[in-house]
Amino acid sequence: MSATVQAVLFDVFGTVGDWRTSLIRRLQRFGAENNLQADWVSLADDWRANYEPSMKAVRDGQRPWTNLEQLHRESLDELLKAQGLDSLNESQRQYLVQSWHLLDPWPDVVSGLNRLRKKYIIGTLSNGGVRLLTDMARFAGLPWDVIFSSDLFRHFKPDREVYLGAAELLDTAPQNVMLAAAHNYDLANARQYGMKTAFVARPTEFGPRQSRDFKAESDWDFIANDFEDLAAKMGA
Amino acid sequence: MSATVQAVLFDVFGTVGDWRTSLIRRLQRFGAENNLQADWVSLADDWRANYEPSMKAVRDGQRPWTNLEQLHRESLDELLKAQGLDSLNESQRQYLVQSWHLLDPWPDVVSGLNRLRKKYIIGTLSNGGVRLLTDMARFAGLPWDVIFSSDLFRHFKPDREVYLGAAELLDTAPQNVMLAAAHNYDLANARQYGMKTAFVARPTEFGPRQSRDFKAESDWDFIANDFEDLAAKMGA
Repeated sequence: MSATVQAVLFDVFGTVGDWRTSLIRRLQRFGAENNLQADWVSLADDWRANYEPSMKAVRDGQRPWTNLEQLHRESLDELLKAQGLDSLNESQRQYLVQSWHLLDPWPDVVSGLNRLRKKYIIGTLSNGGVRLLTDMARFAGLPWDVIFSSDLFRHFKPDREVYLGAAELLDTAPQNVMLAAAHNYDLANARQYGMKTAFVARPTEFGPRQSRDFKAESDWDFIANDFEDLAAKMGA
Repeated sequence: MSATVQAVLFDVFGTVGDWRTSLIRRLQRFGAENNLQADWVSLADDWRANYEPSMKAVRDGQRPWTNLEQLHRESLDELLKAQGLDSLNESQRQYLVQSWHLLDPWPDVVSGLNRLRKKYIIGTLSNGGVRLLTDMARFAGLPWDVIFSSDLFRHFKPDREVYLGAAELLDTAPQNVMLAAAHNYDLANARQYGMKTAFVARPTEFGPRQSRDFKAESDWDFIANDFEDLAAKMGA
């Protein structure tokens, strides 16, 4: 199975980066430093909950290409208003949007990626922007060989352009590229477009709101507990 | 000057990779292993000499987007014919085109990049393809944060789309991005589009055929002897 895989590409939000813990900590610290009262946990969870709907208008062609940075900002402005935090100034809002660039990885990520990298090209396949993904890699020590971002394709997953575009840029067929993700729907799309698939469970990603993706829901090519386990199963 | 620079992007062929020494060695080894007589030094030099003209038809819009991998192959096929080596088979030709993925860096490159990376985002800004640049980085241990390639913009330098496209993907203004290159014309274009510039001399790049770029021909923002020197001058 893995004999033909040349590259393993990773979903980032949730699969690589523990966005929830990272966001809540940064938001709470921001609140303390600025003497602001708010439900920071809900703000983080609501912000992430807006992620899929915010991309929909772009994916449906109802608005021109708009990158995730801008969508994060629009969602934040709405949520701040709803929380009575409309007084935040421009630099404060930019600081909060920047939170998404500075996510801690799950504990197994860096060691697992370093193992996988010895045998495979490793990269991102994310709806995050190039700058966001680059900043996160530098912040978290993620040893990517290459960054594939929605920015490059001007499409968000699960649009086919993202999956097929990454394989094309790697000058190889989709079946030689594997997507690793904690989300079954992402893998179902990757498989539909001919890629190999690896599921890595992140059952605490969404905290109390997590309602799915506790386990693999199909016969993915690899099913792993974490990135170290994936590396071991892929012979790296 | 460097206070606003967020990212340093590098020309690759000649600036980072010593294509001539690397190609000649691989071609000569290939000849010896396959009992083939040819002027391998001229083949390497002629192959590189075809590089600019081969991109011209694409840049002028006379042919649709064609990436460097394909142009390298077309040039090779012509040169083999001229050298009486038309008998080479498909896998041999692929092996030779692959030579461009496996260039040795100049001796100062890896240490200089590792220094620069502590302070700046570092990346490529190259006419090479994404796969080529990724393979070279893995082969040579180049610690890029991000790979910017003509493939992403479907344009070759010196088209403006490449310079401005990289800054756009970094979510910043061109003046916050620096191009480092061994070629004055590349820097002149970068400057024209608002980028910062750094010249690094590679006076032996073209061997006996070198006719220009022995030294900086303008008041580039930085003028360095090598990447270690550039890192020192940029405070990294």
